[in-house]
Amino acid sequence: MSKNFAVIGGDLRIVKLIEMLTIDDNIIYSYGLEKAQELKENPKVKFCDEMQEAIRDCKIIIGPIPFSTNGVDINTPFSDEKISIEEIIHNANGRILMAGAISKEVYEMQKNEDEECFKIIDLMEREELAVLNTISTAEGTIEIMIANTNKTIHGSEVLILGFGRVAKTLAYKLQGLSAKVTCAARKDKDFAWIKSYGYETANINNLKSELTNFDIIINTVPHLILSEDNLKYVREDCLLIDLASKPGGIDRKAAERKEIKCIWALALPGKVAPITTAEIIKDTIYNVLKEI
Amino acid sequence: MSKNFAVIGGDLRIVKLIEMLTIDDNIIYSYGLEKAQELKENPKVKFCDEMQEAIRDCKIIIGPIPFSTNGVDINTPFSDEKISIEEIIHNANGRILMAGAISKEVYEMQKNEDEECFKIIDLMEREELAVLNTISTAEGTIEIMIANTNKTIHGSEVLILGFGRVAKTLAYKLQGLSAKVTCAARKDKDFAWIKSYGYETANINNLKSELTNFDIIINTVPHLILSEDNLKYVREDCLLIDLASKPGGIDRKAAERKEIKCIWALALPGKVAPITTAEIIKDTIYNVLKEI
Amino acid sequence: MSKNFAVIGGDLRIVKLIEMLTIDDNIIYSYGLEKAQELKENPKVKFCDEMQEAIRDCKIIIGPIPFSTNGVDINTPFSDEKISIEEIIHNANGRILMAGAISKEVYEMQKNEDEECFKIIDLMEREELAVLNTISTAEGTIEIMIANTNKTIHGSEVLILGFGRVAKTLAYKLQGLSAKVTCAARKDKDFAWIKSYGYETANINNLKSELTNFDIIINTVPHLILSEDNLKYVREDCLLIDLASKPGGIDRKAAERKEIKCIWALALPGKVAPITTAEIIKDTIYNVLKEI
Amino acid sequence: MSKNFAVIGGDLRIVKLIEMLTIDDNIIYSYGLEKAQELKENPKVKFCDEMQEAIRDCKIIIGPIPFSTNGVDINTPFSDEKISIEEIIHNANGRILMAGAISKEVYEMQKNEDEECFKIIDLMEREELAVLNTISTAEGTIEIMIANTNKTIHGSEVLILGFGRVAKTLAYKLQGLSAKVTCAARKDKDFAWIKSYGYETANINNLKSELTNFDIIINTVPHLILSEDNLKYVREDCLLIDLASKPGGIDRKAAERKEIKCIWALALPGKVAPITTAEIIKDTIYNVLKEI
Repeated sequence: MSKNFAVIGGDLRIVKLIEMLTIDDNIIYSYGLEKAQELKENPKVKFCDEMQEAIRDCKIIIGPIPFSTNGVDINTPFSDEKISIEEIIHNANGRILMAGAISKEVYEMQKNEDEECFKIIDLMEREELAVLNTISTAEGTIEIMIANTNKTIHGSEVLILGFGRVAKTLAYKLQGLSAKVTCAARKDKDFAWIKSYGYETANINNLKSELTNFDIIINTVPHLILSEDNLKYVREDCLLIDLASKPGGIDRKAAERKEIKCIWALALPGKVAPITTAEIIKDTIYNVLKEI
Repeated sequence: MSKNFAVIGGDLRIVKLIEMLTIDDNIIYSYGLEKAQELKENPKVKFCDEMQEAIRDCKIIIGPIPFSTNGVDINTPFSDEKISIEEIIHNANGRILMAGAISKEVYEMQKNEDEECFKIIDLMEREELAVLNTISTAEGTIEIMIANTNKTIHGSEVLILGFGRVAKTLAYKLQGLSAKVTCAARKDKDFAWIKSYGYETANINNLKSELTNFDIIINTVPHLILSEDNLKYVREDCLLIDLASKPGGIDRKAAERKEIKCIWALALPGKVAPITTAEIIKDTIYNVLKEI
Repeated sequence: MSKNFAVIGGDLRIVKLIEMLTIDDNIIYSYGLEKAQELKENPKVKFCDEMQEAIRDCKIIIGPIPFSTNGVDINTPFSDEKISIEEIIHNANGRILMAGAISKEVYEMQKNEDEECFKIIDLMEREELAVLNTISTAEGTIEIMIANTNKTIHGSEVLILGFGRVAKTLAYKLQGLSAKVTCAARKDKDFAWIKSYGYETANINNLKSELTNFDIIINTVPHLILSEDNLKYVREDCLLIDLASKPGGIDRKAAERKEIKCIWALALPGKVAPITTAEIIKDTIYNVLKEI
Repeated sequence: MSKNFAVIGGDLRIVKLIEMLTIDDNIIYSYGLEKAQELKENPKVKFCDEMQEAIRDCKIIIGPIPFSTNGVDINTPFSDEKISIEEIIHNANGRILMAGAISKEVYEMQKNEDEECFKIIDLMEREELAVLNTISTAEGTIEIMIANTNKTIHGSEVLILGFGRVAKTLAYKLQGLSAKVTCAARKDKDFAWIKSYGYETANINNLKSELTNFDIIINTVPHLILSEDNLKYVREDCLLIDLASKPGGIDRKAAERKEIKCIWALALPGKVAPITTAEIIKDTIYNVLKEI
């Protein structure tokens, strides 16, 4: 069941993704990737001189992940040319456009086009991709923990703030390394799951003196949890890691004042395991195609 | 923060629950439990001669789990008297009634009473209780597996049908015993979680020849999954365990014809770990009280 | 590389072993197994009328496991005839005799025969068999624990006395079930290994008040550890399991007087997982044959 | 039970060790550590101007780990002075000298002194220290794996060569991270233990085409295992890590020619977890003192 894919722009993960798609016998029409040397000898990759040429015979367009960093042009680190969001949206008529981290503004632009025959899918919003990415996030966090402490993870008291996707996978892996894992949550249902995996529980709304027990505290909640007030109870030799996207959940300035090491680690999957991440993107694209 | 509880009827778990509630300094007004010998010397348990006496000074009434087995009377194995559902509903006015597995009919009866000052809470519907009960369900299943096979769980190929609450905990514990665990689900999101815990995946909608690989198959889905058609692929020395409530998910008659051992195991928590189960009920009651 | 094996006597495990050996294309000359119905239709099993006939064309003789229970005759539950140890020893000249739990007296008898061309191998003394049998011992112990407590293993405080082969595997599996595992040993080296697997340590020479913490205590040491004196500190609702062969390591009479439940569980592998056990015996026989 | 310790020379781990010993109320007489700023304000640390002064009131002398790097002087990174092995040996009469990685030559020197009242203990030879150090070795290896691959450890096929102390702990932790772990050994007993922990087995004497399966291969055996001949079967995108001390077990030049990434990682405990390592040294010293 080989398919044609138009791939417009994108970074190293997209290059790896293209390789994997061609191994599965798909044909790739690329644009905005002319500097991706490792694709040059691949007979299943066509380099097109114009976007329209790339898109012509393809039902599916794959765009960059993230789609755009400036809100005007899409992300094209493997090209010297600028490609505007407007151009790709305009040309996508009658196609499915899959990309990552697509802003509301892009969806707005789509409304000006013929909606019925054009579909935008944000791969980053897909649950299975988010879940599978937690694995490399967890491994990247473990690397940071080993590199930034003078003790072993084994036997350390580790507190994870939040019990969402990342927290679940991270707790599981840290327990696999014989850390003493506590998860802080607020719902009784979450406390039940935390216990059923054998971790200790803490009430995220009421963290105080118990914070003193921990060698490492990892935040996964995207709003302020470890305030200056809480940080009073944190030991100076504790390592803080914030995995939450902006604005993060740790008052980093207060941590700095108390001379507590605090690392804000974002976008770990692409850094820690680009090949695994590309595989997950590929599988997610296939899942989307099965559904439509 | 000791409280008064009226406890009306109930089985051994309710007796254990009463003990635990009194250890926490609560006072119990019991009715329909006059044969519970182990409560007789407990100074914090009052045995009342009438339901109204038991309820009088209590904001909270705890009824049986399950509430009723015949739809007319509540469950009172520790009493010679019959107590009608109607009577308890009528007397509950202005109180909170907590019990387990309460039928729609009971809620209907409530509507005839003054709704505003009377609340029914089905403890069995509480998420945290359902989650924590999966632990004893999993352990009971493990006991059945060890007792009913001639091989070790270690190294066995085990298929779990479904990936709900029970399946999640069971898979985790079987992996902890070095079984080779496959979970069958249908959603991409579930496949992602299954992989993130290191289990193998199978498509529950398309189980065929791969069924031959398994030494043990455990169903957790409450509708027919292992049909006569599927069972053709199951080895005769495979052990089948059905954990789903009525009607179950395995065609037990077809299994019998093929001489495949099939065990339908229901209500394991109360059998396997009554004390742990009573503790969970107590914690759930406290959680409910915090919320209201 | 099919071989001829003479198999003389033995129980159900030997019958299962014969089946497995014939699946591997070996030829079996049996004696003292005439009532093993399930072997009757197997074309690779010859039923011989005399021991000499069975042994004639075989370099390897497999005897019962255990070899003898009365010190005079070998173990033949699948035969009406008595077969003396003396007879088998006398006929084994020039062969390799493998059996299980062979007493010193048997080795003495051998000395009267021509030692150079006759070798006795006690399969039960083989390290790999002892190690692999710990798996079914551990699973059998878990079954006993689940069946004989009112709490879940999950979250229970479990003390394992000793840190030999059985203790190592049992501790590993109990941790896999989220028990809180403590291992009692005496050597610093053992304490180091206990910590490296993430268990708690206790000093087996100095068990006192800490015994009160445990919900379940399992002994693996074949001499008295839990004396009457120690038992003073054990809670009445604690479950004791003794896995050690005679004389065991728990003062069972003292436990009875204190009304502490105590289960002496011996020879679990044959009971819990006879097929797995037969496979292990087969692999061990093959290992022996590679070495000689 | 506070004690006096003479501490002569040593690196950061010795400095951390001194801190821990003083927290336990011991008194330290130091020599050859005058540049260790963090000890300067510690009232329980005496800085002596001569070795004899440091040793005078102490039964126990703690030397560097490793003791010497040039065979003439002991290791003194926190001092400008050179201290000869000869001097410390001469002054140790009547004392116990504990240090790490002590060469045969040092033991020879001791023979010229009065043997009866002078004891040398090589802490690195202590089994409990070697076992506990495997934890930080394993964590350091995991850090290297995450940093040097483009895939997740989760789901990777990992081969560990050897099944000694380091291999055992590493396999356990990698399984805890959901790697697919194979251990290569040669003894049937080791194969049995490998299976009992749920890993796959490989025969270290006969590694050929199966090597192609692995994403990561880690050697723990201190002689050549992965020869040029074996490396033919290893994929180019495989990561090789050699944990064995000189000469290592991987033909690194052959790996380089094949452009396979190969990392030789030595002495990880001191680098990865100096505080945990110092704690282990302290506990080992206390163990030694209990024994003598």
